[in-house]
Amino acid sequence: MRTLREAIKAVHPVDQEARARVQARLDRLTKPVGSLGRLEELAVRYVSITGKIPPPLPRAAVYTFAADHGVAREGVSAYPSAVTPQMVLNFLRGGAAVNVLARHVEAEVRVVDIGVAHEFGPVPGLIDRKIAFGTKNFAVEPAMSRAEAERALLAGIELAGQAAQEGIGLVGTGDMGIGNTTPSAAITAVLTGSSVDIVTGRGTGIDDEGYRRKVAVIERALALHRPDPHDPLDVLAKVGGFEIAGLAGLVIGAAAHRMPVVLDGFISAAAALVAASLQPLCREFMLASHLSVEQGHRASLRHLGLAPLLDLDLRLGEGTGACLGIDLIQASLKILTQMATFGEAGVSERSP
Amino acid sequence: MRTLREAIKAVHPVDQEARARVQARLDRLTKPVGSLGRLEELAVRYVSITGKIPPPLPRAAVYTFAADHGVAREGVSAYPSAVTPQMVLNFLRGGAAVNVLARHVEAEVRVVDIGVAHEFGPVPGLIDRKIAFGTKNFAVEPAMSRAEAERALLAGIELAGQAAQEGIGLVGTGDMGIGNTTPSAAITAVLTGSSVDIVTGRGTGIDDEGYRRKVAVIERALALHRPDPHDPLDVLAKVGGFEIAGLAGLVIGAAAHRMPVVLDGFISAAAALVAASLQPLCREFMLASHLSVEQGHRASLRHLGLAPLLDLDLRLGEGTGACLGIDLIQASLKILTQMATFGEAGVSERSP
Repeated sequence: MRTLREAIKAVHPVDQEARARVQARLDRLTKPVGSLGRLEELAVRYVSITGKIPPPLPRAAVYTFAADHGVAREGVSAYPSAVTPQMVLNFLRGGAAVNVLARHVEAEVRVVDIGVAHEFGPVPGLIDRKIAFGTKNFAVEPAMSRAEAERALLAGIELAGQAAQEGIGLVGTGDMGIGNTTPSAAITAVLTGSSVDIVTGRGTGIDDEGYRRKVAVIERALALHRPDPHDPLDVLAKVGGFEIAGLAGLVIGAAAHRMPVVLDGFISAAAALVAASLQPLCREFMLASHLSVEQGHRASLRHLGLAPLLDLDLRLGEGTGACLGIDLIQASLKILTQMATFGEAGVSERSP
Repeated sequence: MRTLREAIKAVHPVDQEARARVQARLDRLTKPVGSLGRLEELAVRYVSITGKIPPPLPRAAVYTFAADHGVAREGVSAYPSAVTPQMVLNFLRGGAAVNVLARHVEAEVRVVDIGVAHEFGPVPGLIDRKIAFGTKNFAVEPAMSRAEAERALLAGIELAGQAAQEGIGLVGTGDMGIGNTTPSAAITAVLTGSSVDIVTGRGTGIDDEGYRRKVAVIERALALHRPDPHDPLDVLAKVGGFEIAGLAGLVIGAAAHRMPVVLDGFISAAAALVAASLQPLCREFMLASHLSVEQGHRASLRHLGLAPLLDLDLRLGEGTGACLGIDLIQASLKILTQMATFGEAGVSERSP
């Protein structure tokens, strides 16, 4: 899949016949029918996406895409942009929250520099797909060119393809980029048709004045650039971010390779909106790990038709929520494959 | 602690000073302050309960108390009572949902026969604390004597004490007992002051007629026995169950030994109501793993002042939800102890 068009065409509907077979197996296990609720739903979805019955326990990888944002110069974040590369190095040393949670759930963290405004040089473990040293400030000019948006999407698609070849069976999304709730809110506003104040939150923790400034910056940018809601590449180019484009590509590539994608929070959902806008079938491959505190997340999940698994007041990103979602999926697959059936265990079924 | 009174007196308030120290550490880790939401709250609660800073990763054990219920003869369950001992054997062979999820989270399952209506004989792994072969049918007579209720409580207290001695640092509750949502609803109605129809659900899945019968059975029993809401032993004796009494003892014993107790669903919450009624400080040691589909669970958690961690439409019991809660607590402790601080990682703190 060397072009975006090829990747989009490679996405097919999930396997409905597998759904029924998995549900039938779940109903023979020693528990009242349906009593494991959403764990059962997860097992059904995993198998319908992959087509694998019984499913082997998948190797999981969380892709944390990092990039910087020109719009951060407008004072829309509580942290300086220098934190983006500092956190990338923290990820590579294993000291960040996503590393801790990924180890807890036995997933791998893969860190992708897709647009950090820092020259890392050769750093062991860092996946270099840098498109540029951060986006331009979309308060005054488009964030990137259309060609750059497409290159970032393709980088994500390519990484998903490599993961599939390696035998990864479950992909999580993650992000790092100081200022990135601002492009995410802009994208969410355009692609869900919501007003900016509804989908804009406080990110890492700006104060009231910063919040008003953030909303105003996004509103002015949308009025200035008029991104076309029916053209997701136009939206990405005008008000997007490189990590968001890369994650959108990862989602499309995962769907093309029948790998379930566990979405992290608000930034990942903005990427998922882009992916679903390019190929609506992508939604069938997405699982929403959690509902973020970031207020726009509710609108994006509703638009995607996804019910989050967890609601733990998280608002960190990085892929932390995705790790917890991966854990529940692994649990659901163990339920499907390791529990005894009524017949095997000699347990009576329900009264007639 | 050979008496109930001794155990109740051994429960002391949690360590508020430790809370502040843990929060200060969490705020130095490389993430925006508070951005891991309830995971941070879990780490704070774990340390305030145990007083251990830094906390070692605890060994966890889920105690699944099994018992039968005379009231099952009233047709209040979709399954026959024979399923209780069959499931006990399934637990011991490792084929039930709680076994699968406990292995997933690296917890041990300990199965306690506290009142199953079956002669197991010597079975490896089964903890024999049988008080009787099931309760009496409380539709017509008290479920047990007051002395039996106290013995069941003491069995739970003693098992918690043994766990503490072995170095267990985290205890989960679980239950198995065909018919046991009926005594749980009765206890919940009495101890929360709710009407019976509000706290009665469909258990393993009875139909409309069975549901009406179940509500009527409980209402009649409460009118017949008039359990004293200020005397939890009276409530247990008149409309309780042995596993509920045993779990209430486990909660009290865990609190007395400063072990956090992760509550499973509706039956465990009924036991927690009994424990909190005997010693209100017990609530500080409880963590609610999830909100069950069983409708009375909301009332019991509200009465206990507990916010559930998960809402995954579970309604199985056994300790399945407790396992998932244990997993989140372990994750929270790893966050506290394994993440880098801003200083260690060379990451800039927020802008002034």
